[in-house]
Amino acid sequence: MRNVRMLIAYDGARFFGWQRQDGFDSVQESLEDALLGIFSKHIVVHGAGRTDTGVHALGQVANFHVDTVLDDHRLQRAINAHLPPEVVVRRLETCRADFHARFDAKGKRYLYLIWNEAERSPFARHHAHFVRERLDTAAMAAAARHLVGTHDFTSLASSGSPRSTNVRTIRAARLVVRRNRLAIVVQGDGFLYNMVRTIAGSLIDVGRGRTTPSRFAEVLAARDRTQAGPTAPAAGLYLLGVRYAEPCFGGRAPGRS
Amino acid sequence: MRNVRMLIAYDGARFFGWQRQDGFDSVQESLEDALLGIFSKHIVVHGAGRTDTGVHALGQVANFHVDTVLDDHRLQRAINAHLPPEVVVRRLETCRADFHARFDAKGKRYLYLIWNEAERSPFARHHAHFVRERLDTAAMAAAARHLVGTHDFTSLASSGSPRSTNVRTIRAARLVVRRNRLAIVVQGDGFLYNMVRTIAGSLIDVGRGRTTPSRFAEVLAARDRTQAGPTAPAAGLYLLGVRYAEPCFGGRAPGRS
Repeated sequence: MRNVRMLIAYDGARFFGWQRQDGFDSVQESLEDALLGIFSKHIVVHGAGRTDTGVHALGQVANFHVDTVLDDHRLQRAINAHLPPEVVVRRLETCRADFHARFDAKGKRYLYLIWNEAERSPFARHHAHFVRERLDTAAMAAAARHLVGTHDFTSLASSGSPRSTNVRTIRAARLVVRRNRLAIVVQGDGFLYNMVRTIAGSLIDVGRGRTTPSRFAEVLAARDRTQAGPTAPAAGLYLLGVRYAEPCFGGRAPGRS
Repeated sequence: MRNVRMLIAYDGARFFGWQRQDGFDSVQESLEDALLGIFSKHIVVHGAGRTDTGVHALGQVANFHVDTVLDDHRLQRAINAHLPPEVVVRRLETCRADFHARFDAKGKRYLYLIWNEAERSPFARHHAHFVRERLDTAAMAAAARHLVGTHDFTSLASSGSPRSTNVRTIRAARLVVRRNRLAIVVQGDGFLYNMVRTIAGSLIDVGRGRTTPSRFAEVLAARDRTQAGPTAPAAGLYLLGVRYAEPCFGGRAPGRS
């Protein structure tokens, strides 16, 4: 049995998230249905991480096991031919037999996209979060820098998701501004549930002047979810890439998509 | 009666073009329905130019006449509140009584967007034309330069649209390349039916190596539609702006959006 890993992009707007659920369209089901169409049997696809309803991906990673004479290139083309237009396999390669997209993941990179203009965009409505008020991007960038490092991120996690520890390491957090589009890019070893969307909501509060970068640092230190900003909508969130210890998909840096 | 002009953006993917047609969703109808919702009467909206099914706009211009106490800002907000999410009024201003969006238009600017990568994009499927083969962008740019000037564009117009003359002036034609996205930007005093899409189809043929820049110049000179490339799909086409003799919407250059 070959172990095959894929780099996947999807438009989350029409899916109820990554994970297969009876009666709801999911990205995982789309991929498993494509494999069913090719191999006439159910093959489980393991994703690096679940994404919620409406969340997009440019660099989701998933693997599955299959016995086939198709080489990697033909297998990728066959899967893409069976997928709906909202999902595409960007890269595909046979990997070591014990590679597991989720268990081997060492970190992830997310982008949160904000459309900051006087009027909403007809093109961005499912693919960015629209904020009408002019945002103070310098203040947002200053606040974002407080995220970097190893912290207890309880303040920025959705409540009701108890874990052994809420300590995570954020390796990079920056704001990229291109005219009216603001992108919050966050890279870390792990993320708590809704953490990136709460980071985005909190940074937007800073940008609106409702709070300050130093107050944001205090909220982070307080380990109290009730003090942070709101959870920003799913439409702005993109899983950019998954990092592994080994180079994947011909990337120069490990796991960079 | 006030004469009001609007700068409009729309996602053409779900419309059967700009022009009102019974039984089909159109952008014009969306705008007239919004005005109907606000003023409880039918008000005709005059667009600068018709766009076909699936064609997008970032800078369509339209005007209408209305008698209202709402100032421009409130009128714009009211219309946007009544429009579907696929259409937005980006700017709105009261103008001279005899301004007409179509008759006063001195030129238009279009963008044709090509997604040139090994795999299609889930995000670009209704908003760009996907071309898998690697395109020779230097050759495309060289061919595009032949468009500039005053020519008989019969070779690049859809047949079956007889006009008094097929002579038009193209003021600028260039190719903008950003990674895997290619944008053909064409600015001219007027365009024949399907002309920008045929320009795009012909330039893509050049990019594929099916023809050369000098052969493209010959085709243009031949005034024979059968020699040019195919008409590229509507999904890649955007009306960027309309030029008028007077400055509009606070723009520095006349009519630049």
